[in-house]
Amino acid sequence: MTLTILFAAGADSWAAYERPLRAALAEHLGNRDAEVVTDAAPESVDYIVYAPDSWLSDFTPYTRLKAVLNLWAGVENVVSNRTLTAPLARMVDDEGLTQGMVEWVTGHVLRHHLGMDAHIVNPDRRWDHQPPPLATERTVAILGLGALGAACGTALSDLGFRVRGWSRSQKGVPGISCRAGEEGLAPTLDGADIVVLLLPDTPGTRCVLNARSIAWLAPGAVVINPGRGALVDDDALLAALESGRLSHATLDVFRTEPLPREHPFWAHERVTVTPHIASETRASSAARAIAANIARAEAGRPLKGRVDRAAGY
Amino acid sequence: MTLTILFAAGADSWAAYERPLRAALAEHLGNRDAEVVTDAAPESVDYIVYAPDSWLSDFTPYTRLKAVLNLWAGVENVVSNRTLTAPLARMVDDEGLTQGMVEWVTGHVLRHHLGMDAHIVNPDRRWDHQPPPLATERTVAILGLGALGAACGTALSDLGFRVRGWSRSQKGVPGISCRAGEEGLAPTLDGADIVVLLLPDTPGTRCVLNARSIAWLAPGAVVINPGRGALVDDDALLAALESGRLSHATLDVFRTEPLPREHPFWAHERVTVTPHIASETRASSAARAIAANIARAEAGRPLKGRVDRAAGY
Repeated sequence: MTLTILFAAGADSWAAYERPLRAALAEHLGNRDAEVVTDAAPESVDYIVYAPDSWLSDFTPYTRLKAVLNLWAGVENVVSNRTLTAPLARMVDDEGLTQGMVEWVTGHVLRHHLGMDAHIVNPDRRWDHQPPPLATERTVAILGLGALGAACGTALSDLGFRVRGWSRSQKGVPGISCRAGEEGLAPTLDGADIVVLLLPDTPGTRCVLNARSIAWLAPGAVVINPGRGALVDDDALLAALESGRLSHATLDVFRTEPLPREHPFWAHERVTVTPHIASETRASSAARAIAANIARAEAGRPLKGRVDRAAGY
Repeated sequence: MTLTILFAAGADSWAAYERPLRAALAEHLGNRDAEVVTDAAPESVDYIVYAPDSWLSDFTPYTRLKAVLNLWAGVENVVSNRTLTAPLARMVDDEGLTQGMVEWVTGHVLRHHLGMDAHIVNPDRRWDHQPPPLATERTVAILGLGALGAACGTALSDLGFRVRGWSRSQKGVPGISCRAGEEGLAPTLDGADIVVLLLPDTPGTRCVLNARSIAWLAPGAVVINPGRGALVDDDALLAALESGRLSHATLDVFRTEPLPREHPFWAHERVTVTPHIASETRASSAARAIAANIARAEAGRPLKGRVDRAAGY
């Protein structure tokens, strides 16, 4: 029997998801028939792909509903909806989130390593035939060795960089020299050419990059922050860029987003702002995650990312 | 008997190579005696370490010559020298040349993939929260699957890109969809988002990127040329950038180097010029590659990078 999947999210999302979702369902459900629609008789619907910007708020008429698959990682806007009794799964997009982060971090590390900016903007037409050092001569320190930090460190190590990693509790990642705890931070940053911040935002990590820790880095080091805005002491960072102690900062996350137009980061020639794009759910990988989850439910296996209603996430 | 190795390249090269070459020979030839000199009776010379900026152009008097080891990867200035009958090997410096090329190519592919330029130069402070597609959604075509092309293709494939490769004769490289010969070119380029040129400069490869082959690429594709200047039809490239058929070209090599200040590439907003730095022989690693090749020849094994005179590389 054909599965009916109702797509209940904003119109923009449908434009982005229609094709990837159809393709992913064909791939994951094999020869099982499934149709994705934006409108259907409620009693015929098996699954709902949902986003909180949807027109749908009353789940009562969906009597055959097997599960609701949230398009977003956050479920705070639906978890307390009392008309929803079917299982609810939040988005777990390992492929998109981790892969996107690896690409962004690797790209910006290589950009600074190769000194690209001087070639991208070169009004004086300078031809300075000086090849950059090899990656084996650069030390990259990664603060945070969760799924994202470990994946980025591995990719950089594979490219030849000398990679050090730091985390709250001791980790072991092949190709990365790992340290942990308060006393492990200074030796991790000591003389590092590039530091990448991938820690969670907790009381213990706030302003981990400050005047004191910046002083441990190599002179002219580069800071790359795709983690959380609060990891950086902004004033200390600006002072170190001003003095030349740091040569550049590339920042993807900020205390306030979008970054206000009057913020000094925008105007600073040694700061690159990227608009929180390092790691984002993408339609293609999110569609595959949804299709895989429906296939899992149809096979009687537990949903990935199933929300615990009592805990609220 | 002592091996006599004549170093025949510019004076600057000798200053850079003398020490690393002596050290590498001592390491690779074990207790076999070898002397590296910049002057010797031609009939006493066993090997010549050569660069096209050398004073040496007539190889006829070198009657005992076992091989010529080119200091550079490109052999177009020596391959047609009729006085040279001994085997000729081009530089295969996996450690320095290949690693440097992998870093440059991976960096610039990621730069275009991530759309970095719009963030590096952003005077309007635009915050456009649009994440780029994932690497799995980008097709990179690499023309040339020699040591450099294969290594770059592998690195890009490891990062998730869909990589196609093209070469004169059929190759097999894991992670790369390989095609060969005249009829393999169109399917390699068909719809590719990024093309990387890593072919040698031969009569058969000159202007391989021309109006016809550009038309096979995806609309708005990017051209990256760290190979040889002559691989590109410059006028066709400029026309395609002008019309928007191509969105950018990042070029490291040119027909004339340094690129003349009045050349239109310098002024074009869709062209990035890098000063032939993608892959540079570094004396330390190149010296090890030469010493290892001489040791190989002395052990009766084939030279690494031996040039096929008929093919021209």
